[in-house]
Amino acid sequence: MNKYLLCCDWGTTSFRLQLINRGDQRLIAEQISQNGIGQTYDIWKQREQSGIERITFFKEQLKNQIDALSIKAGFSLDNITILMSGMASSSIGMQEIPYAQLPFALDGSDVLIKYHEADETLPNDIMLFSGVRSSRDVMRGEETQLIGLAEMIDLSMDIDAIFILPGTHSKHLYIEKGVLVDFKTYMTGEVFNVMANYSILKDSVTAGLGTQITASEWKAFEDGIRESEYSEILNALFTVRTRQLFDLLDKKQNAMYLSGILIGSELRQLNRETNWQLILCCGQNLHALYQKAIETLQLSKSTIIVPSETVDNAASAGQIRIFEFQNLLLNKINL
Amino acid sequence: MNKYLLCCDWGTTSFRLQLINRGDQRLIAEQISQNGIGQTYDIWKQREQSGIERITFFKEQLKNQIDALSIKAGFSLDNITILMSGMASSSIGMQEIPYAQLPFALDGSDVLIKYHEADETLPNDIMLFSGVRSSRDVMRGEETQLIGLAEMIDLSMDIDAIFILPGTHSKHLYIEKGVLVDFKTYMTGEVFNVMANYSILKDSVTAGLGTQITASEWKAFEDGIRESEYSEILNALFTVRTRQLFDLLDKKQNAMYLSGILIGSELRQLNRETNWQLILCCGQNLHALYQKAIETLQLSKSTIIVPSETVDNAASAGQIRIFEFQNLLLNKINL
Repeated sequence: MNKYLLCCDWGTTSFRLQLINRGDQRLIAEQISQNGIGQTYDIWKQREQSGIERITFFKEQLKNQIDALSIKAGFSLDNITILMSGMASSSIGMQEIPYAQLPFALDGSDVLIKYHEADETLPNDIMLFSGVRSSRDVMRGEETQLIGLAEMIDLSMDIDAIFILPGTHSKHLYIEKGVLVDFKTYMTGEVFNVMANYSILKDSVTAGLGTQITASEWKAFEDGIRESEYSEILNALFTVRTRQLFDLLDKKQNAMYLSGILIGSELRQLNRETNWQLILCCGQNLHALYQKAIETLQLSKSTIIVPSETVDNAASAGQIRIFEFQNLLLNKINL
Repeated sequence: MNKYLLCCDWGTTSFRLQLINRGDQRLIAEQISQNGIGQTYDIWKQREQSGIERITFFKEQLKNQIDALSIKAGFSLDNITILMSGMASSSIGMQEIPYAQLPFALDGSDVLIKYHEADETLPNDIMLFSGVRSSRDVMRGEETQLIGLAEMIDLSMDIDAIFILPGTHSKHLYIEKGVLVDFKTYMTGEVFNVMANYSILKDSVTAGLGTQITASEWKAFEDGIRESEYSEILNALFTVRTRQLFDLLDKKQNAMYLSGILIGSELRQLNRETNWQLILCCGQNLHALYQKAIETLQLSKSTIIVPSETVDNAASAGQIRIFEFQNLLLNKINL
């Protein structure tokens, strides 16, 4: 048994590979790049005539990243199993595999898995994990984060909970007795981006994360949340423009106001879900915004806020949980 | 008194100039072009260093169009008064003039007017009409269409009515006793455009007006309207993608489904406005969609549907109504 695992989070626009000590799940070394699934697929498409198979091309790209990580680690990473979830199993990923169905257990037993044995292109076994679908929604990756989160926060099996995973496509995951029974995708982050960059509102906002948020910008954010309760979103959006026309807000404040309208629209119906424990799982970049939104909507009492460091490690924790479950299963079968 | 008027509808992306017989409001000739306010302003901006005044530049452009219309009409259009409403009075228009305030009477008496006397650049007087603002919304042009519509459909003064003017930025205009008391802008058409062209949904829809709508496409449109009642819009939007992933709809059907979600979201709260007469005022291009949406939402009983030809003539009818009111007023003052 190898003492290490490689956890790979290959998103549409980013790539992260982590070398993990299997025993205590300690991070040994990490390799991050902008070579996301989308770009990798596009490059393969351009070279398709050369006859190279998609999976071989993706393996070659992965090998380059493993070689870079090997230098950081100071030893060879050959034969270490790679665990992959998320967009890697999509139609533009390494290999498309079908979605698992609901209900979906949080112990990892319902994940569909595609094994790839080590070969001359890549001297590592790969375990590629499926996403999950309902009758009306899909996800790839968040189910693995959920499995990691459920283990890390030690959720009681008696609690009915909604895990909120904010992002470009926010997910609300409905858990009953340790089983995922439903989920909904909200296009919150993407609608923000297209409205801020391609609509008439582009002249009314200056978007950009990473800067300190001032008191007046927080005030604008809270105003946006209240606006989302007061009026329908297609109408609320236009008030971003009028606030600028009336010189009520500068463009940075207005971006926060727009963000408040959208995050408010996403979260406000959670007020109706009074029998559910809300669990906010926000990475570093959106943590402050969603925490403020929960407070403004007076949802704090029914919400557990998971630390963003825990959320940032959820994908690899979930991958390892799935791996260990499968390992246990294989050992049982071998007995 | 000149027996003619020139009615100008100068929008952000289009230009329309109509020569009207003042007595019976008959259309004599018409000049249409793509030289909208936006493009005209941009060209002026590029030439700003040459020292030409904005208003002079816009007048020159207008003169070119009048000359073209003059050839069609077969006589000189010198000295015929030009009536202008809409984006011509905006910050990117011929000359910015402030918005009139609410309440705003439908007889034309509350419009703010800026006169420009004929000069060597343009041998026509111009009457430039303001838009209207509330404490949280703005419009330029729809108030003039409303004045025209109210006259053409002979609205009883006793009725409280909501005029619905669909478009890129749909307007819902609240009328009490012949006075506009409130209005709301819905970014329905623009959200459709940015989502269909710039979001992840662009791979799930084929948008494009002007083709015959099939029975299955109408079915998809109705499904979208029902979806807008069932779920929050940021969530409903993502089902456009899943319907394509699940091969439930082709891309043209899916564009109609997206349209249904958005038009449904715009109109569904009108179900709550039970004390108001709804008046749907749709031009040719959106008429069928909004009529179907009104039926699907079971609003037909409380809705008057204005013929699209009437709506298409509303702007010039409103301009003439305002002109005649002002003329009457001037005559009174002169007495």
